[in-house]
Amino acid sequence: MKADPAIILLAHGSSDARWCETFEKLAAPTLQSVEGSRVAYMELAEPSIDTVVAEGVKAGTTSFKIVPLFLAAGRHLRKDVPGMIEELETAHNVTIELAAPIGENPELGKAICEVVQQELSKEAAPQD
Amino acid sequence: MKADPAIILLAHGSSDARWCETFEKLAAPTLQSVEGSRVAYMELAEPSIDTVVAEGVKAGTTSFKIVPLFLAAGRHLRKDVPGMIEELETAHNVTIELAAPIGENPELGKAICEVVQQELSKEAAPQD
Repeated sequence: MKADPAIILLAHGSSDARWCETFEKLAAPTLQSVEGSRVAYMELAEPSIDTVVAEGVKAGTTSFKIVPLFLAAGRHLRKDVPGMIEELETAHNVTIELAAPIGENPELGKAICEVVQQELSKEAAPQD
Repeated sequence: MKADPAIILLAHGSSDARWCETFEKLAAPTLQSVEGSRVAYMELAEPSIDTVVAEGVKAGTTSFKIVPLFLAAGRHLRKDVPGMIEELETAHNVTIELAAPIGENPELGKAICEVVQQELSKEAAPQD
């Protein structure tokens, strides 16, 4: 059986530290339960995908799977990220697979419904 | 007991129909289970927030809660959307509350972990 690819949770990145903190919290349950998983940013924040892949390679990893923390695929996921992956595969001699953005998985729709139910429960609670 | 506010699931919007389709699918479980809930787009797609609020007002709604389908708060949610809300409240004589972006709710982190587990299961399945 071949080894699982190392999971990279890819966020867009921002120069606003609060923005990155939200993604670190979003990633926490995955980082805790999936060995070797990491967060990486496309731009404007560190670690970059290049940094994370380079560190993985040093640790002996040759296969990565990028799970985009994006709700939908726009230009970044249709064009920019595939281009970055092609360059990284050549530069580091690894294989990198790009998964669908998380928003295309039905789990996200269910989670959104749960969030809305929680918001409505707040309304019903006593306002004191 | 006061009536629940009408829920508006707010997405950024895009001129790419595939992008909007993903958000419509993401919203589907909520739209099915929360009466009167709607999707609205901030820009580049219809219905706009203005359209959805105006239609709600016609149907007798005076209180709305916007749940942003954004993973984190950037400039749009910190500045642009509050500005739009202020104008809409005045124009339509309604109250509009802005909830935190969905990515700040722990349900999303759990859903992401589930998505990653599903991605790893695909790897483990026979590849024929």
